[in-house]
Amino acid sequence: MNDQSTLSDIHFILHEVLKAPVHLQALPAFAEVDADLMHQVLDEAGKFVGEVIAPLSRTGDEVGCQFANGQVTTPPGFKEAYQAFWQAGWPSLACVPEDGGQGLPGVLEAVLYEMLSGANHGWTMAPGLLHGAYECIKHHASDALKALYLEKVATGEWLATMCLTEPQAGSDLGLVRTKAVPQADGSYRLNGTKIFISGGEHDLTDNIVHLVLARLPDAPPGPKGLSLFLAPKFMPDGSRNTVYCERIEEKMGLHGSATCVMRFDEATGWIVGEPGRGLSAMFVMMNSARLHVGLQGIGLLEAAWQKADAYAKERRQMRAPGRGTSTAEADPIIEHPAMQRILDTQRAWIDAGRVLAYKTALELDVIKHHPDSARKAEAERWCSLVTPVLKAAWTEQAFKGSSECLQVFGGHGYVREWGIEQIVRDSRVAMIYEGTNEIQAIDLLVRKVLADGGAGLMALLQTLSDAQTDHNALNRLFKTQMTALCDLTRKLVAACATDKALGYWVADDYLRAVALTLLAWAWTHIEQVAMVAEDARWIRPADALQHWVLPEFAMRVQIIAARLP
Amino acid sequence: MNDQSTLSDIHFILHEVLKAPVHLQALPAFAEVDADLMHQVLDEAGKFVGEVIAPLSRTGDEVGCQFANGQVTTPPGFKEAYQAFWQAGWPSLACVPEDGGQGLPGVLEAVLYEMLSGANHGWTMAPGLLHGAYECIKHHASDALKALYLEKVATGEWLATMCLTEPQAGSDLGLVRTKAVPQADGSYRLNGTKIFISGGEHDLTDNIVHLVLARLPDAPPGPKGLSLFLAPKFMPDGSRNTVYCERIEEKMGLHGSATCVMRFDEATGWIVGEPGRGLSAMFVMMNSARLHVGLQGIGLLEAAWQKADAYAKERRQMRAPGRGTSTAEADPIIEHPAMQRILDTQRAWIDAGRVLAYKTALELDVIKHHPDSARKAEAERWCSLVTPVLKAAWTEQAFKGSSECLQVFGGHGYVREWGIEQIVRDSRVAMIYEGTNEIQAIDLLVRKVLADGGAGLMALLQTLSDAQTDHNALNRLFKTQMTALCDLTRKLVAACATDKALGYWVADDYLRAVALTLLAWAWTHIEQVAMVAEDARWIRPADALQHWVLPEFAMRVQIIAARLP
Repeated sequence: MNDQSTLSDIHFILHEVLKAPVHLQALPAFAEVDADLMHQVLDEAGKFVGEVIAPLSRTGDEVGCQFANGQVTTPPGFKEAYQAFWQAGWPSLACVPEDGGQGLPGVLEAVLYEMLSGANHGWTMAPGLLHGAYECIKHHASDALKALYLEKVATGEWLATMCLTEPQAGSDLGLVRTKAVPQADGSYRLNGTKIFISGGEHDLTDNIVHLVLARLPDAPPGPKGLSLFLAPKFMPDGSRNTVYCERIEEKMGLHGSATCVMRFDEATGWIVGEPGRGLSAMFVMMNSARLHVGLQGIGLLEAAWQKADAYAKERRQMRAPGRGTSTAEADPIIEHPAMQRILDTQRAWIDAGRVLAYKTALELDVIKHHPDSARKAEAERWCSLVTPVLKAAWTEQAFKGSSECLQVFGGHGYVREWGIEQIVRDSRVAMIYEGTNEIQAIDLLVRKVLADGGAGLMALLQTLSDAQTDHNALNRLFKTQMTALCDLTRKLVAACATDKALGYWVADDYLRAVALTLLAWAWTHIEQVAMVAEDARWIRPADALQHWVLPEFAMRVQIIAARLP
Repeated sequence: MNDQSTLSDIHFILHEVLKAPVHLQALPAFAEVDADLMHQVLDEAGKFVGEVIAPLSRTGDEVGCQFANGQVTTPPGFKEAYQAFWQAGWPSLACVPEDGGQGLPGVLEAVLYEMLSGANHGWTMAPGLLHGAYECIKHHASDALKALYLEKVATGEWLATMCLTEPQAGSDLGLVRTKAVPQADGSYRLNGTKIFISGGEHDLTDNIVHLVLARLPDAPPGPKGLSLFLAPKFMPDGSRNTVYCERIEEKMGLHGSATCVMRFDEATGWIVGEPGRGLSAMFVMMNSARLHVGLQGIGLLEAAWQKADAYAKERRQMRAPGRGTSTAEADPIIEHPAMQRILDTQRAWIDAGRVLAYKTALELDVIKHHPDSARKAEAERWCSLVTPVLKAAWTEQAFKGSSECLQVFGGHGYVREWGIEQIVRDSRVAMIYEGTNEIQAIDLLVRKVLADGGAGLMALLQTLSDAQTDHNALNRLFKTQMTALCDLTRKLVAACATDKALGYWVADDYLRAVALTLLAWAWTHIEQVAMVAEDARWIRPADALQHWVLPEFAMRVQIIAARLP
């Protein structure tokens, strides 16, 4: 991501559409953060990403991480880039100064990670878990553990992992079997096998800090029997802990990130938080982690769009309809309707995704720092409801939309040369990890909307609607969808009271309906600012949204309505 | 593909639903072909595919074709499998006996290639172009050329290529620049570079027969200036012709097939057909070639479904809704609604796809062999209208549906071990080659439907509707869609008369609307036979079709209607 137009788009959404500096200055922690500072940080970030990280993406894919004798070698250049990254202070952007951080808002970190993911998804997996680990240690670890690990993780000098999944326990972490046995010195002995551990082993940093879900000897079965432990690769005395990488997975993409099978073989660890509270200690940063996966989707789709847009402007094939008078042998394919449609549709998703994701990041800053509890509750409502939608709908669009961008290249899209097929392969994983998209849909509908009779979602939509002042076509569309969605929600709540399976059958459609309503809302927001200028940059995706994207809303409503009694 | 249930599904569609033997026996060429013979051939085919071809799929992907010093080495086992394949007579199944063939109906070849593609898409690329090359040589080459090449290509002793695409000429073959200069001995000297040539070089056969689009010195620009030439790798005297593979592409998938850049460097060739008639000589087998790509989609989606279905029955995670009383720790994920829905939806597409594809193959047999010209014209109408729909909609479903099947595996789907991600990667190319899916949509709407004012399509739909005797829910749905589609077609024809670009904007939606109508029709056909038995095997996908698939029809109509004046 070194494209100036992308950065100016990002600034436009942050400053003009969302008025981020105004919102941040209401938080005492960020009273000093103004538009200039935000510009400066993001311009620097864009430069670093474009110059240092993006050029490593193709090597990351082609060479990939290599495994031999328990060691993982990252692709050429990855280690140097990571050392430059942490030494420049990027991992600690949003950590507080007393932990060695820079005390900047999380929204800046969110934009940084969007840019990093689009430039080099594989490399970005390495620091991607750092902030979550930092929050987890900060809020749950003992003072002794914090003294050893908090600053190292805050600054990124040491990288961290989340060791959750086991061969028999994926979406269902209640099935985790790794055992933790207490020792006389207050430590625990960990035994078990964890799979799909991103960065479980590598050569990027001197030490690796593993956060591990495991079960105490007397723990009950299921999720409530899980506790969280910290187990470093190297012990404080420098000796090697007995946690080993057994192999790394051969994957569809994301070759720049080692996905490890980790064996804990009487490994030493220390408990983080209360026994039996392991899941809640990890889930404290769930909204932030899911937001970041949604941002990966946005970043990857932007990268795919950039490539396809540039290609479509250069490549000439056939005469475009209505271009009979050109003297050239053929017209640029961007003038062919099928190609324009693909490109503008992706822009509609990317631009709206940024509005929603940056707003979510701002609301996470509010949750952390706002003095007023009512305002915090409102922010919590937004994050709780919008995050699963962002995660699921924007990772799905990253995969499907980057595949459409591949189509713009014709046969050239299927070969490595243009880098577009790598984006399709890399992006596919984001629909799976951090809770599959199906789990996100169940989280939204069954665990959140049905749980409060739809009150939270309807109140949120009402707030969005009340804030609308314009009355153009897009506003009317948003209000129509919002009304239909509230009506559907009421009926669904009633029907699910007697039919417990119903919510599970239509959760995916419901999440899509919410996503399409938020998409419409985000564009009314953009339109209020941008349309004044009658700028084709914004008008074309807004048209694409109305013509090609939003009609799905009625289909989703129809699918759900047909299942109602 | 060695699964007995797949073969019995195929037999069911061919025999019970389509009554294929009855239709074939009406053709003098196939008077001897009865149900027993068809069973016997396909059972043998299934055995060969399952035992010889399927086991090579993963090696084909992982080792891939290797290029060095102008030579291509195919993956281990590919050559032996190909030699066994042609020596067993499989390539010549549908060639006439006088050319060394077995004189069987094309529909059997279609099923063979569906099975082959699902088992090993990469390997199947090698013989995949043979039949087209055979037809092309048979119908257009001189007797002297036929004497040298027809039987070798019919039997598959020598493999063939289609050399069309050039760096600047993809979808737009009118831009082809390869030159052919006539020589005193009646041959031509060919000079130019062709790209994306599947099997342009390999070690599977002793010789390779290239069919090459090129331009005579006095030819006009554009498609009408193209002629077709045959240029072998080895000349009849055994000397090496000057056509060389310069490199092979690194691709997203399909690693078992070498995608070659071919350089014709004063290569010797002979003209096939008339000068300036090169495209028509190749397009004679276009319907058959596009049908076969649609069948690749069906075969690959079946393979993905098989894997996901088996996994979903074994893998246990969480309690499925309504299964609270089980004593097991967790339920098989096939009992989770989100997973059932994915699996049943793919079956709805596969089963209907088989009905439509096998019927198309039968109609191609009718075109070749039926004595009655009115019946032939009807068959030509079917093939002309249905083939682009099959090609586009079923290759799209292969990619999207196999990606959904990958989702059933969770994180395990993203790693190589289960083979599902290979299907997603392999299948992606079928949306591009043999005319991109966008080109198919333009072919259907702009070149065919608009060209005759919608008369052909509406007559075809009326014929299908008239043949319906039942009046159940699915029949009504089909008739509703059919009526809406005819109505929309009329309006679109009127609107496109004044707005020449409109058809290009909505071609994709129109093709989807036709696909969904044919899907509904195919299932009414299946239902008439299968539902009697009240068999969950057929009821579940029929339900999925109605609940999750067909609602898209109204959305497509709405999208198009919104663009009408």
